[in-house]
Amino acid sequence: MTSPTRLASLACGCLRPPGLGKVRMGGFWADRIEATRARTVPILHRRCEEAGMFDQIDPHRPVPEQRIPFSTAFGGSAVRPVGGNVTAQMYWDSDVAKVIEASAACLAGKRDPELEAMVDRIVDMYADLQAEDGYVNSWFQRMQPGKRWLNLRDCHELYCAGHMIEAAVAYFEATGKRKFLDVVRRYADHIIERFGPEPRRPGYCGHEEIELALVKLARVTGDRRYLDQARYFIDQRGQKPRFFEVEARERNEPPEAFAHRAPDYNQSHVPVREQTKVVGHAVRAMYLYSAMADLVTEFGDDGLRRTLETLWEDLTSKRLYVTGGLGPSPDNEGFTRDYDLPNESAYAETCAAVGLVFWASRMLGVSPDARYADIMEQALYNGALSGMSLDGSRFFYENPLESQGDRHRWEWHRCPCCPPNLARLVASIGSFHYGVGDDALAVHLYAENDAELSVAGRTVRVSQRTSYPWDGAVRIRLGLDEPSAFTLLLRIPGWCERPTLRIAGEAVDLSAVTRDGYAWVRREWRDGDTVELDLPMDVQRLYAHPDVRADRGRVALRRGPVLYCAEAVDQTAPVHRMSLPKTGTLSARFRADLLGGVAVVSGPAETASAAGWEGRLYRREPAAAEPATLTAIPYFAWDNRAPGEMSVWLHEA
Amino acid sequence: MTSPTRLASLACGCLRPPGLGKVRMGGFWADRIEATRARTVPILHRRCEEAGMFDQIDPHRPVPEQRIPFSTAFGGSAVRPVGGNVTAQMYWDSDVAKVIEASAACLAGKRDPELEAMVDRIVDMYADLQAEDGYVNSWFQRMQPGKRWLNLRDCHELYCAGHMIEAAVAYFEATGKRKFLDVVRRYADHIIERFGPEPRRPGYCGHEEIELALVKLARVTGDRRYLDQARYFIDQRGQKPRFFEVEARERNEPPEAFAHRAPDYNQSHVPVREQTKVVGHAVRAMYLYSAMADLVTEFGDDGLRRTLETLWEDLTSKRLYVTGGLGPSPDNEGFTRDYDLPNESAYAETCAAVGLVFWASRMLGVSPDARYADIMEQALYNGALSGMSLDGSRFFYENPLESQGDRHRWEWHRCPCCPPNLARLVASIGSFHYGVGDDALAVHLYAENDAELSVAGRTVRVSQRTSYPWDGAVRIRLGLDEPSAFTLLLRIPGWCERPTLRIAGEAVDLSAVTRDGYAWVRREWRDGDTVELDLPMDVQRLYAHPDVRADRGRVALRRGPVLYCAEAVDQTAPVHRMSLPKTGTLSARFRADLLGGVAVVSGPAETASAAGWEGRLYRREPAAAEPATLTAIPYFAWDNRAPGEMSVWLHEA
Repeated sequence: MTSPTRLASLACGCLRPPGLGKVRMGGFWADRIEATRARTVPILHRRCEEAGMFDQIDPHRPVPEQRIPFSTAFGGSAVRPVGGNVTAQMYWDSDVAKVIEASAACLAGKRDPELEAMVDRIVDMYADLQAEDGYVNSWFQRMQPGKRWLNLRDCHELYCAGHMIEAAVAYFEATGKRKFLDVVRRYADHIIERFGPEPRRPGYCGHEEIELALVKLARVTGDRRYLDQARYFIDQRGQKPRFFEVEARERNEPPEAFAHRAPDYNQSHVPVREQTKVVGHAVRAMYLYSAMADLVTEFGDDGLRRTLETLWEDLTSKRLYVTGGLGPSPDNEGFTRDYDLPNESAYAETCAAVGLVFWASRMLGVSPDARYADIMEQALYNGALSGMSLDGSRFFYENPLESQGDRHRWEWHRCPCCPPNLARLVASIGSFHYGVGDDALAVHLYAENDAELSVAGRTVRVSQRTSYPWDGAVRIRLGLDEPSAFTLLLRIPGWCERPTLRIAGEAVDLSAVTRDGYAWVRREWRDGDTVELDLPMDVQRLYAHPDVRADRGRVALRRGPVLYCAEAVDQTAPVHRMSLPKTGTLSARFRADLLGGVAVVSGPAETASAAGWEGRLYRREPAAAEPATLTAIPYFAWDNRAPGEMSVWLHEA
Repeated sequence: MTSPTRLASLACGCLRPPGLGKVRMGGFWADRIEATRARTVPILHRRCEEAGMFDQIDPHRPVPEQRIPFSTAFGGSAVRPVGGNVTAQMYWDSDVAKVIEASAACLAGKRDPELEAMVDRIVDMYADLQAEDGYVNSWFQRMQPGKRWLNLRDCHELYCAGHMIEAAVAYFEATGKRKFLDVVRRYADHIIERFGPEPRRPGYCGHEEIELALVKLARVTGDRRYLDQARYFIDQRGQKPRFFEVEARERNEPPEAFAHRAPDYNQSHVPVREQTKVVGHAVRAMYLYSAMADLVTEFGDDGLRRTLETLWEDLTSKRLYVTGGLGPSPDNEGFTRDYDLPNESAYAETCAAVGLVFWASRMLGVSPDARYADIMEQALYNGALSGMSLDGSRFFYENPLESQGDRHRWEWHRCPCCPPNLARLVASIGSFHYGVGDDALAVHLYAENDAELSVAGRTVRVSQRTSYPWDGAVRIRLGLDEPSAFTLLLRIPGWCERPTLRIAGEAVDLSAVTRDGYAWVRREWRDGDTVELDLPMDVQRLYAHPDVRADRGRVALRRGPVLYCAEAVDQTAPVHRMSLPKTGTLSARFRADLLGGVAVVSGPAETASAAGWEGRLYRREPAAAEPATLTAIPYFAWDNRAPGEMSVWLHEA
């Protein structure tokens, strides 16, 4: 048996995701990535063009109209958008940036000169647009000239800057091309010159994003000033006097006229370190917490770490859907009250689940703890992945856990933030599977892939062979040019009840080596060493806390990391009439013919009979139960076939 | 045993409610009426003044501003209105008219010179406002002069006329004063001159109301022209070309720019006689159907009667809350899809339930059928009565069947239609208890009261002694100056399983005399004859049709006509955690000390324990059940004490 070893060198900041292109995904994720590359990314470029985003950016084109009928923009009925008009948006730079970032992730996995040329053209536009002083924002330069930096609360200016920085970093990583990176660096320098302690001006953005982007810029350039600037924005947030109120008064607006009313909408109600509840707009919150986690990693900031642990506990114990979706309310696109998790009206924006994956991933940089990896996996395979159709062509902005059959994926949206956000996550998903440190290699997620990673100064080739998430048998082979001592950290998923591990053919006592949900295996690894991790996947029933009103008397089904739902097309009775007996056996079967290949869960159920109810709406006897069969599919794959009802939480009889 | 007799003369139109002041209520309703008289009606007058309604009507005052901050209008924090401003509304005449009608009903029950003087002052304003040609509408005469009759679809012009007519008829009935009746007659004549077949102009109102009002005007004046005009408006509705589309084009507006989108919003999508589904705005629908029922009564119109039966069936078998509330959606204040009856988000406007009482009452004029009386009673005691606090001072506009504790009665509302609507119903509730015909007397509702009715040309004094709705023992004594032969129709409520009847001490075989839910007892009645009707009230469990998603696995409790709910203040555990065992015994007890005296239902329940859930949101075992006691109060009486959760539909374990 291998004995547990605590890596002395495993301190804050030592586990980082590998860069773009280091992990080549196969199996499950290869399909998702290929759909993203072949369908989603071209669609994204086309929609940006059709909506007029490039007209807004390109200084050589005429300044566009602000309102374009959707039918004109998208050539009529071929596209089914939400809403009646495209309205030029102040945050379009961020959408274009996410499209670049998604494109970059695809390019890192597979060269594509045509796609690269499309990105280069956008980069050229931005380079041409950039002002002498470094400022670059198509809305304020082209649509609203002269209004720069007057309203950080509402105008997404630093938010757009952040996404452009992320995009430029990704494009540099993927292609080695520096032009866009140079543009955003000049812009970041301009921002640093402007915002900061006296004699600079105070400020931070109404939509967090610049903070995490500056950390990325610091890491890729090695320039600490960007890190310090991120810390400034975070530490300044919520200090008194509240910047957004000062700024509103300077605009001669009453601060209380804020459309979103309370300052907790953008997490500026109290200083960040004093926050104890996840509040407000969910995407904003996730991006803020992601940046905070980065700062913990970079600065070893224990105070901020404690804050994040409190916020994590609050989210995961009171405010998170079982899908990993978050932010139940359309009113603030965000959080409401503890245990307020309605199913049919769930907002649960795709971007918020994507943001949670980002935050969780960064918490793993702080500390390898399966609490974070479990939630990352839960959000990834369910509430995030549900945002895109299997073929990559249609999208959910909201991710309800129940539908009467009237909710369908759309081809485009007035606020098109989600498709490129999910696309960049999917295309770069390999990076989320591993964490590499000076003396350690962590496997956070399991999936078929081949990675080439740098650990302890040496290259380690990792081959994962598995049918995950449909089967829990994982075979890892390490490829090393020479023997190398380091700690291999293997996540033991919280959902798995009887995991077993063999290293180089030898059984490992997991209870002895597991700490915070990771098995720590330190040894001198040799080329060809194998890891056999078996994670049996039972179909599990999940129940919600009794204060979750919407889920009283209901059960959800999970197998491995995948959450299931009943969709009308698979059932012999209406979904809302079905219930599961408390004791019925549920079994899973992989069906290669269905939904691109998924494990289906089925078992005996009951359906409430409508017999005897003719012409009656209420009566003194409940409906009789008739036998039925439940067939449940992965939640992420719903609404890819005939439209109909769907429910994650099933009645239990 | 008395044998069943079908009244030969009981044809369409023969059963009409007695006029105002004929029935003096005691017991349960005396309390409600007194609250209305002493609290609600004075509040209504005060709010009309404070909101500026009288400023708008009175031609001797300056034309008011259109927007008045609520805090100014209502003297600050003493009133807790919904919304930030009073905005002068085109439908204010209707609100003032309903206040007059409620006042009239109170005056019919109890003289009150001060109240009468207040009404007289308003009547004087309207008389002074009335134009030479008879037109009278304060919005279009004072706020929007020159814009009469340009937009019947949206501007409530005929709707306001209808409410003024109803008010004038009621005030005439209550006081004998003709001044207001003369005003509205001249206005009705003006309307008749304008709207009708060629050479008059086509038209009907976007909010039905004028139709039923014209029937009332015809009945009180004996002038058939008003009846014919009502029939014109009803038969014209939905004919092609659609009037609202023609009218919109005349205003140079695209007809499809209708804010409420579809013509079924106001039931003008197809001709009224072809309608088969209750659709659109619920109050509009109820007022339309009420007028249609009046026409069946007045014209013996069998086609219209069949339409109404279809619509009734549709409403009561697919689209009605168990409270008798209706119209689930705030979007159209109306109907959506079959079985779409969400509880927490239920709109179920007070006015809609009041309108259903009106419609049901008129269906009883068409035919004495307990189907109609049962629904009338259900809506009255539950979904309508819930709209007013026990003391008559606070109101619900929406009547959800479930609350997390955040829904409370308000003191005033931007759209103040509901309080005077319910007030006029409560103050005139005696009229709804009886139907009188040439040769018959029907008792539709049971309650402590003394009535003086005219049947078969003779005065019949009816004394009901009962503690209804808390007890089902009803003792009726007939007072006659001389013996008189007529049929007494006694409703046997659908909720009652073992009714018994004794007439003048002799047992009656109800199965032999009951038809359509009414016991028909024809005999020569003598002074002092007694009717002993016993309607045992069990606590009953009700279940909803299996297609009502919101009520799956849930049960509602009813006792007699009263529907129950669990309110937080009475429970030892949070309402949402409670469940009723399927087989537990529930008992009722009258508590004079509670909520002005109500029967309380209680019994063993379970509560889901939060033990073991610390820090967890989902787990593999359901929450353990702990014993608890359920205490349920009448739904209509909720939110009269400490704020908290409420639920009508309780989980069944």
